[in-house]
This record gives sequence, C-alpha cells and structure tokens, in this order.
Amino acid sequence: MSKELTTRAEDYSKWYNDLVVKADLADHSAVRGCMVIKPHGYAIWENIQQTLDKMFKDTGHVNAYFPLFIPKSLFEAEEKNAEGFAKECAVVTHYRLKTNPNDKTKLIVDPDAKLEEELIVRPTSEAIIWNTYKGWIQSYRDLPLLINQWANVVRWEMRTRLFLRTAEFLWQEGHTAHATKEEAITETKQMLDVYADFVENWMAVPVVKGVKTANERFAGADDTYCIEALMQDGKALQAGTSHFLGQNFAKAFDVKFVTKENKQEYVWATSWGVSTRLMGALIMSHSDDNGLVIPPKLAPNQVVIVPIYKGDEGLAKVSEVALQIKAKLNAKGISVKYDNRDTQRPGWKFAEYELKGVPVRIAIGERDLANGTVEVARRDTLTKETVSIEGIDVLIEKLLVDIQSNLFERAKQRTQDLTTKVNSYEEFKKVLDEKTGFVLAHWDGTPETEEKIKEETKATIRCIPLNNEQEAGTCIYSGKPSTQRVLFARAY
Amino acid sequence: MSKELTTRAEDYSKWYNDLVVKADLADHSAVRGCMVIKPHGYAIWENIQQTLDKMFKDTGHVNAYFPLFIPKSLFEAEEKNAEGFAKECAVVTHYRLKTNPNDKTKLIVDPDAKLEEELIVRPTSEAIIWNTYKGWIQSYRDLPLLINQWANVVRWEMRTRLFLRTAEFLWQEGHTAHATKEEAITETKQMLDVYADFVENWMAVPVVKGVKTANERFAGADDTYCIEALMQDGKALQAGTSHFLGQNFAKAFDVKFVTKENKQEYVWATSWGVSTRLMGALIMSHSDDNGLVIPPKLAPNQVVIVPIYKGDEGLAKVSEVALQIKAKLNAKGISVKYDNRDTQRPGWKFAEYELKGVPVRIAIGERDLANGTVEVARRDTLTKETVSIEGIDVLIEKLLVDIQSNLFERAKQRTQDLTTKVNSYEEFKKVLDEKTGFVLAHWDGTPETEEKIKEETKATIRCIPLNNEQEAGTCIYSGKPSTQRVLFARAY
Repeated sequence: MSKELTTRAEDYSKWYNDLVVKADLADHSAVRGCMVIKPHGYAIWENIQQTLDKMFKDTGHVNAYFPLFIPKSLFEAEEKNAEGFAKECAVVTHYRLKTNPNDKTKLIVDPDAKLEEELIVRPTSEAIIWNTYKGWIQSYRDLPLLINQWANVVRWEMRTRLFLRTAEFLWQEGHTAHATKEEAITETKQMLDVYADFVENWMAVPVVKGVKTANERFAGADDTYCIEALMQDGKALQAGTSHFLGQNFAKAFDVKFVTKENKQEYVWATSWGVSTRLMGALIMSHSDDNGLVIPPKLAPNQVVIVPIYKGDEGLAKVSEVALQIKAKLNAKGISVKYDNRDTQRPGWKFAEYELKGVPVRIAIGERDLANGTVEVARRDTLTKETVSIEGIDVLIEKLLVDIQSNLFERAKQRTQDLTTKVNSYEEFKKVLDEKTGFVLAHWDGTPETEEKIKEETKATIRCIPLNNEQEAGTCIYSGKPSTQRVLFARAY
Repeated sequence: MSKELTTRAEDYSKWYNDLVVKADLADHSAVRGCMVIKPHGYAIWENIQQTLDKMFKDTGHVNAYFPLFIPKSLFEAEEKNAEGFAKECAVVTHYRLKTNPNDKTKLIVDPDAKLEEELIVRPTSEAIIWNTYKGWIQSYRDLPLLINQWANVVRWEMRTRLFLRTAEFLWQEGHTAHATKEEAITETKQMLDVYADFVENWMAVPVVKGVKTANERFAGADDTYCIEALMQDGKALQAGTSHFLGQNFAKAFDVKFVTKENKQEYVWATSWGVSTRLMGALIMSHSDDNGLVIPPKLAPNQVVIVPIYKGDEGLAKVSEVALQIKAKLNAKGISVKYDNRDTQRPGWKFAEYELKGVPVRIAIGERDLANGTVEVARRDTLTKETVSIEGIDVLIEKLLVDIQSNLFERAKQRTQDLTTKVNSYEEFKKVLDEKTGFVLAHWDGTPETEEKIKEETKATIRCIPLNNEQEAGTCIYSGKPSTQRVLFARAY
C-alpha cells in the first residue's frame, strides 16, 4: 500500500481518511459503521484515557461498570432521553442461534429464543445507571455519588467516518448524584473545565467553552455545556459535553433521598463524556500532508532514533551511542523507540515516522560519531538541525515542550484568524462559504430562527460562549433585538 | 442494610453472594444475568488490569480494539467455534425503535428497521479479528502479530453468579498470529506462564498448570492450556486459558502469508484470556466470615488509618500525627486512606474496612500520642499489636510483604491438603463428597469415560498437569490401562 496521502488542498475529507488508515490509527471493519482501532491509534487513546482518568480521580471520582444492555422498559422511562436515542439504537431480540435445517453449515436465529423484553445496546447509560442509583441512595450521607465509567456505546449512525462518527465508539461517561441543584451545577462546570484543560494542555487544541441552545441540548438535560474546537478546514468539532440533568432522571427512576432536615427530595444529576471522537480532533488540528502530528504529551513514542550505517560493524558502533542517548532520554521520562530493523532503509523509516507523527526524530550516522553530533528533526515544523550529543537530553526535553506549545499556539492563531464577527445574513453566508470557521453573530434566541439558519446554511449554533460579552444588536436573520452574539459554524 | 455476612460454614454460596454485595464489589442489575461492578470491586479490577497490561507489554504485545458486533456470516465461518457459542449468544436484529401507536409513552421495535444480516454480540472475538487480520498479513515481515484487547463480551448463561458466571463480563483476549507452529505453541505456553505468575504472585492464589482434554477444549482450538485454582470450599476454578489454535482460523478466514522462501502458507494462531472471573477466585481464596481479604499487591488502599478522638481539638491532634504517618507510607509507595469522617464511629469503621478487605488498619488514639505508639491490625490474621510510630513505615512495608506471602502460603497449604490421590472409583466418589478438592486419578484417555464420570459425579477433568509424572495404572472407571493420573474436581 502506498504511504502517499491525498493532500489537504486536494480533498480534505479524503486526506483525513487516508491518514487514519495509513498511519495505522484505525480501519474500517466488516461490520457496517464500526471501526477497528489499530495499535498505533489505540496507544494514543490509552494515553488520553490515562491522563483523563487521573484528572477524574484527582477531582474525587471513582470508576465503576454498568451493563451493556438496557431493558426497553427502563430505556423508555425518561421520555426525552428515550426519544432522542430511539431512532439509532441496536436492539437485541434473541439469545440463541441454531443450525439451519436446510444447510447444516449455516446458523439461523432460533425463533424459540426470543426475549420477553428486548434489550437496547446502550447508546448512553443514564437509564441503567439511575435505575441502579435508586438502590444506592437513601440519605444525604450517600451523596454526592461521583462515578465514571469507561465503556463502549452504540448509536446507529447512517453516515459514519472513522473516529468522528461510528456506530460503536469508546468513551467515558461520568454520572454524578447530588443533594442540591447548586452542587450539581458546580460539578457540571467543573467537568467542563477538566475537559477544556485536557484538550488545550494535552491535546494542544484550543477550545471555546459554552452552553448549548435548547435545540442542541442532550436529550434529557436541563443544560448542556460544551467545548468546541475548530479544525484546519474551518469546520467546528464538539470535543466534549457536560450536562446538568436537573431532577429529570431522579423523577423518571424515582430516586429520592432523606435530607439532613429529614425531608424526602429528588436527587440532582449530572453526566459528562468524551469519546474516541477526540482522536478526530487531534488528527484534524495538527496533521499535515506528510501525515499525523502528535502533541508530545500524548505521543506513544516521543522520540525515534534511526541508525544510518553500513554493515554489522557500522550498526554496532552506531547502536552503542544510540542506546546511550536512549538511556539518557528515558531517565528524563521521555519515551524513545530505537528502530534498528535491517529490513527497512533509513529513508523508509523517516517517511514512516513522519506519517505516524513521532514528535522528534534523531538520526545517527557513522560520520556523526566522529563529530559527536546527531541530526534532530522536529515533526511539527519539519525542520532539522545538527546538534551535539553532549547535553542532548536537556535539549530534547526542551524541544518537546516547545513542540507542545508551538502546536497549541499555531492552532490558537488559526482559530482566531478563522473567527469572524458578522452583522448581516449576507455577510454570514459569505463568510461560511468563502472563509469558513467560527462566526459570531446576533440571534434572536428562538429555536425557529436557529432551525431556519441551519436549513439554509447548514451552520448550527455551536454554543453561547461562557462569560459572553453582552452587546445590543439585531438578529442577522429576523432583525429582532438581541443582547449577545452566539457562535455559529458548520460542524462535524 | 446489615453488614453481617452469612458464615461460610452455614452456607458457602450465600456467604459468597453476601460478601460480594455487602463489600461493595458488585451488584445484581435490572438486566438478567448482568452485573454492576461497584467502585470498590472495579478498583481491584483496575489493579488486576494494570498489572496484567504491563506484563503483556513487557512480553511484546500491543493493545487494539475490534468491533462489539460480529456479522452472522463471519461468526459461522469457523465451524467448531460457531457451534460452541451459538447456543448462548445475544443477537441484534433491529437498529431502531419507534413510538408505540397504541401508547405514545412506550416504544416498540420498528419492524422496518430489520437488519439484512443479524449481528452477534461477541462471545469471543476470533472471528472478527481473523477476518481483520486477513487484511493485515501478507508477508512473513508482518508476523508475528501480537495483539491484545480489553473488552466486554456476552455469553447468554442460564445460571449466573456475580463475577463467576455472568451474561456480560469484562476480559482481555490476546490474539496472535505466527509464521510457524513452534512459535505459536511457544507463545501459547508463554502466556500461560504469564497468567500463572500473575495469579500466584499478585493474587496470591496457587495454580496447577495443565492442558485440557478434548472434551473441555476451547471450541476451535487444537489445544487449550489452563491454570486451575482450588477454592476454600474444595471446588476448582479455571482462572485463565491459553489456546493454540493451529491453522483453524487462518483456514476459515483464508489468512495466508508469503514465507521467506516465497511460498504461500496459512498463519498459525493463539488466543488467551482472563476475565472478571478472577475476582471470584480472589474472593473465594482468601476471604473469611468477616468479609473480604485483599492481597496487598492488588489492594486499592493497602492501609487505612482510623483516628480515635474526642472533639475537634482531639481530632486535630490525632490528624497531625496520622497525616505524618500517611506521608511517610506514601513516600514508600504504599497507598493509604485516612478516614477522618465524623459521621461514623471508629467501631463502625473497623468493621467496614474488615468487610472491604483493607490489608492493614492503623488506629491512632489521643492516648497513643503521648506514648508515641499506634495500634496496627492485619486483616489476614485479624491480629493486633501496639507499635512505635518511630520506624512505622519500614514496619508496615515489611508487614505488607508478610501478608502477601502468608496469603499465598495459606492457600498453597490448603490446596495441598485438599489434593488427594485415589485408586478406585469408590474412593474417588467418597473423596469428592466428603473431603472435596482436587482428585488425582488414572483415566483411560477416552471422552466416553470422562463423560460418564461427569454425569455420575459432576466432577470434570480440570486438566492433565504439565510435566505430569508418568506412572502405570488402571482407569478408575473402566479399569483400562493408563499411563498418568489426571486432575479431577467439581468446579465453578
């Protein structure tokens, strides 16, 4: 398979798909809409998981695991939530196969093994979790309950794209229960901050924090907070959501607690999640026509060392120095791969690690040894320099910090450049079509206008930014008065 | 809910279930046969996962993720495997619900959303993985492929028990592909050794390594290696399996590679797995009538410190010392919980941490402060002693090592005591009924005899131990000649 990618200018969408498959991140599978996450992609996801998991634990959360299946009667208990997911869920109806009487090598669904009640493969777990919480919460002493789950979920999407929209995806879902509304809202916002911190400071992707309009809210939530990021092609991507669920699920599942004052009250809830979709955000924020670019903090290998040599003796000499450098870097907590395979040539390896996004590449040739130097190439800028082996560990350590910050600054600059204030609908449409990106515009606050704009332009309100500047204006669509601009974009 | 457990003598099975629920390890759910893994249970599982994951990576494996669903046509490709799992699998037949026209608050399966091909919820992933490997393996350069997956699987068990047998469970499944038969067999045995190492040295559960008879083999394997452990009640529990799959899946999915000599050959395969069932083995090996006993190496909290005090001032004084001790222990890499909650009394906390299995409890009273001492209680022996605060970090560190080794030695002694050689069928049945445990007996090597013995006594051949002593004898059932004893037991 050729390692050449379609360029972004040629076809952005094809570039993305090429990159995901060729950089060994993910692959299509034999199951409609489901992906295989390949080892290199999964290693990045593991780093994402481990970092977030620590952040969740540092904020007092614990992990648990709830069933994959939700009985239909529980699924339908919270009406809005059920309505929101009913059209895209996988339904288990039978629990046995049997041999096809007409062809002994084939199996058929055994009609005698029909379930009395169908099971829904979880598209999200509020229903099964709140049904469980009912048994766990009696008194204010049992609150707050701060639980997270790492799991797979299924939403039967009709148009799928690797990482961005797949029928099955991996995610974490936090589900917390609180004694007061204020505490639940504080939790909702805290987790939004955790997400923003992670996405900006680990993934190097700048985000806008905001709250969704009623139209875009999670089915069953009173408020949905989100972080929105802008991709290289000027389209927005929702990178995480944190929902204030009010007492909706507590009421649907009858979860009450006895307060300190000995009164019965419904419990307040939040839920929050990020998914393998983050992989899409990471890829589309930083990568280029040569392949993936991984921020150092999430790279499975931060440094790769490639030896350039002739014959076994040459390799032995180079390896000695390479392994010394590796040991020094390891001692600083830097992950290093030394690729001394003799089945591939250095040029092939250079291209391979560029494609796979390793942040720093060190090449060591036999000539370098005499000079006490190596060649260091950084993936983000594709620049190379010859540096002294002396003190290389300090240099690389600093370089990784530089790359991490450069990626963030670059993405931030791009997001700023692609954020435009407009004052008319004409201008709005022109920016969307010609410049793309985030568009800040006045909106009259009605779902009808939002819907019309979406129909006509495919742009949605990504969020009402938090701490939004208040400013008198008129809705670009209806001309009605408005007190603030909201953030529009075409989105993934 | 009362924290009192049924005793083991009274009803071992009820004791187990009580313990699992009351020690907050797991709970029954609204979904038939599916469990909720509660935070305390999940924290132990996370430690199991992390330890094993590192062992897998240290032996050259990487993680990946494959789809939850397997199209029926792939599922049935490897005939024996399909036959083995067809009778207990959850089948997705539809991808949408719709509002019930007769009751707008209810949902029904939308008959228009029937899948063209049914999807099986994976009971194990050989089929989907080998179908994927077909695209990944062309040449000997692509081999070996050493991949592991952490995932949930579903097997529609009719009689379920928390952790031991549930419809959905969590596990890891390794799936490797090799160029030669020898290499695949070496891998199969290596992973069996990894499992034995983990179960003995982390879980403190002694195991017998062996190979399954044809009757007990994994459906689709040429050979199944296993580790078998003996529980306190004298029943065996299969703690892990490692399968040599031969070329069965390569042939079923047509996975060939070009050898160095430029010939086309089928790939050789292994698969190996352990599951949340290990939690059951851990619980039933070490726990007592007071509750759970966790081996220190897997305990989420290795030490709990409980303050005993009067009033805020008393708490402040005790806390100062408690936190110093905590810091010292943390510095040695020991995990410590300081429980200064004022909502519960010390006696309640003692019982709680005994129930939850924390290996070491330190109690600090105001009087202790003057003496420079604390009370240290170990969970495994339920003994207490008063020790000096001076040097307590070294003492606790050593104590944790002692507890880990004591648990293993205790379980090993029990396993030895409950392993009996018998020479007649009468003796065999008597031991099974009266003494219980592992029974070593001669068997004629036929599936028929094995089946008869199972029917009549409910005992199965757990394994033919590796490096088994060769010894001439006669089958206890048929009287036919036999060259070695095999390991029988009634099992979970």
